[in-house]
Amino acid sequence: MRVLVLGGDGFCGWPTSLYLSDRGHDVTIVDNLSRRKIDIDLEVESLTPIRPIGERIRVWEEVSGREIGFMSLDLATEYDKLVAVLTELRPDAIVHFAEQRAAPYSMRTTSTKRYTVDNNVRATHNLLTALVETGIDAALAHLGTMGVYGYGWSGSAPIPEGYLTVKVPTPDGELEREILHPANPGSVYHMTKTLDQLMFAFYAKNDGLRITDLHQGIVWGTQTDQTSQDERLINRFDYDGDYGTVLNRFLMQAAIGHPLTVHGTGGQTRAFIHIRDTVRCIELAISNPPEAGDRPRVLNQITETHRVLDLAKMVGDVMGVEIAYLPNPRREAEENDLIVRNDQFLALGLQPTTLSEGLLGEGTEIAKHYAYRADPSKIIARSVWKAGMETADDLMTELPAQE
Amino acid sequence: MRVLVLGGDGFCGWPTSLYLSDRGHDVTIVDNLSRRKIDIDLEVESLTPIRPIGERIRVWEEVSGREIGFMSLDLATEYDKLVAVLTELRPDAIVHFAEQRAAPYSMRTTSTKRYTVDNNVRATHNLLTALVETGIDAALAHLGTMGVYGYGWSGSAPIPEGYLTVKVPTPDGELEREILHPANPGSVYHMTKTLDQLMFAFYAKNDGLRITDLHQGIVWGTQTDQTSQDERLINRFDYDGDYGTVLNRFLMQAAIGHPLTVHGTGGQTRAFIHIRDTVRCIELAISNPPEAGDRPRVLNQITETHRVLDLAKMVGDVMGVEIAYLPNPRREAEENDLIVRNDQFLALGLQPTTLSEGLLGEGTEIAKHYAYRADPSKIIARSVWKAGMETADDLMTELPAQE
Repeated sequence: MRVLVLGGDGFCGWPTSLYLSDRGHDVTIVDNLSRRKIDIDLEVESLTPIRPIGERIRVWEEVSGREIGFMSLDLATEYDKLVAVLTELRPDAIVHFAEQRAAPYSMRTTSTKRYTVDNNVRATHNLLTALVETGIDAALAHLGTMGVYGYGWSGSAPIPEGYLTVKVPTPDGELEREILHPANPGSVYHMTKTLDQLMFAFYAKNDGLRITDLHQGIVWGTQTDQTSQDERLINRFDYDGDYGTVLNRFLMQAAIGHPLTVHGTGGQTRAFIHIRDTVRCIELAISNPPEAGDRPRVLNQITETHRVLDLAKMVGDVMGVEIAYLPNPRREAEENDLIVRNDQFLALGLQPTTLSEGLLGEGTEIAKHYAYRADPSKIIARSVWKAGMETADDLMTELPAQE
Repeated sequence: MRVLVLGGDGFCGWPTSLYLSDRGHDVTIVDNLSRRKIDIDLEVESLTPIRPIGERIRVWEEVSGREIGFMSLDLATEYDKLVAVLTELRPDAIVHFAEQRAAPYSMRTTSTKRYTVDNNVRATHNLLTALVETGIDAALAHLGTMGVYGYGWSGSAPIPEGYLTVKVPTPDGELEREILHPANPGSVYHMTKTLDQLMFAFYAKNDGLRITDLHQGIVWGTQTDQTSQDERLINRFDYDGDYGTVLNRFLMQAAIGHPLTVHGTGGQTRAFIHIRDTVRCIELAISNPPEAGDRPRVLNQITETHRVLDLAKMVGDVMGVEIAYLPNPRREAEENDLIVRNDQFLALGLQPTTLSEGLLGEGTEIAKHYAYRADPSKIIARSVWKAGMETADDLMTELPAQE
């Protein structure tokens, strides 16, 4: 398949691009490199030394013999260029990662709230109108988030795959209806993904676009079979309070002897997926698109659920570090249960990579290897959900001496 | 109250501004005059000769002795200016009409689809973040649309006021939940109002903003007690295929002897409200806001429902004109029932102005008086929901000679 990967330079986009290329697809990356530029503003860097996109692509060709195209393009603002790329490449499938993807960053300042909404909504809507305008009938797979459902809304009922069957009272009795699961976003970032859902529903209905929305859990892990083939192909590893994801942050913190930063009680239960499964799920999604006229297909891109405190305890025990219970910068329930359906991905053949000490070890090794690149002042999460909320002081001001 | 009317130069905004001023509120209009500029692009004009905003405001002061402020400001793009206005005026209430409001225009071209989403989403989100940033605890009333609910979804059950009680199956039985009514927008324009709803829910929850969303029916009528005091205060009257609303279009068509343009069978049932009730509803809404911490209050701003064909027959009988059944440029059900709850507005004291020959006569008079200003080539609706859909030819190419 000819596949366009929008946001193909990012944490999920890059390993997905290499995986799809390795699997024989003809991949073109479209990216405005915004994720790297935000790091500059935040004065932080990926713990792993990621190489410029041009070098990454050259090295991949050396290693694999396969070419990946690259186009620098801002989806939110360069509409005509997007139409030109679509018209030229006429992709069979499009993977849409091209959104600001960190909840804390989306709550950091007025400016980042506005950027997140403006960028994400326009990127998605421009893509939809461009598909309608060009008449390109590509399978579109979009990265959503488990956060569209919210946590704790449905009690002991499992979170379904996108659509919820409900009974609606009528004067004569009850109607049964299948509705898009009510939106309960916990941040401006998550909110943008709930807006995306409504745009997808409309364009699928009105224009017959074939869309799959992938409600992904929290990604952990760094490398895939492709990114580990050469150090210059290494994937990014975010550990800062805005972009770092919880399990990777724990591994990095443990690697430098930093107490594990648990927000509140750690009673939050979240869904997780390893980066190796992310890339497989993407291929399954674009290979099994809905038909024109179908509502968007929604898949929960997760493999397991864990309580944050249980993860911290596991990492703490293995690595011999303490847990620090810090004020929660988010407005969220202290504790919640979470059961999530992912039947469709299992039926499509996904074999989940679940949490194990072996995989934790891999992450720990990477974190230790590159620990010298860390800035401990970037670890504490300080983007608060509302002005005036308390945040913790730095727990470590210098890196420990190398062993 | 000190009231900011965003979009206060438009069809609903102008009479609302005058009504609130007449009722003793201290009104400032914020508008970028986009509605007038779109008319330039569409090569059409209000049937009524509306005066420039500065003249309108001067005349209102002559007539009433009351001042209205005006600020030219593009909410979607001039964020800093918005913050400055809010900081300077510190309004008690804000009425938000500042969105592109025509469904056909929103489906006209790729460019108008993108403009509608970019403008409406950014205008609303900028307003929300500006309220959070400035800490101004104003009552915010937003013009939504009945179109967020869709038509025919709930069978014989009445459309509730924003929230729907449903039963959700669980492993142990059922949970009862009150959810935002599922979104079923029929156009890009309606879709933007469903996006607004999710932004309102988030900012009410996270930041305690006090928001009322007014799901308005199709507005008819032109004048209010205020706009009729001087011809230079006259409200706009849109008759073109993009911006004209159905009943006003019928009145204008009848006035020039044009067949009444019914799309499809005319079996569509829609909710209506007279412009005189719109302005009253706005005052009721801003005078009865929710508390901080409450979810957005949703009110259905409608007074009655009618089948389009029944309206055409009524106007046709009174005025002696024929009905023309034309291809429907929209993708919608041929027929639907519609029962709508508006209990909250009735409880707040609204006394509905319902359809009567007297009121139709008033519209007819205005339409006849200004018929010489009409361009018959602008009457047929030609913005189709999907490329290739059929539209009608002009039914009249010249205005009839003046009687």
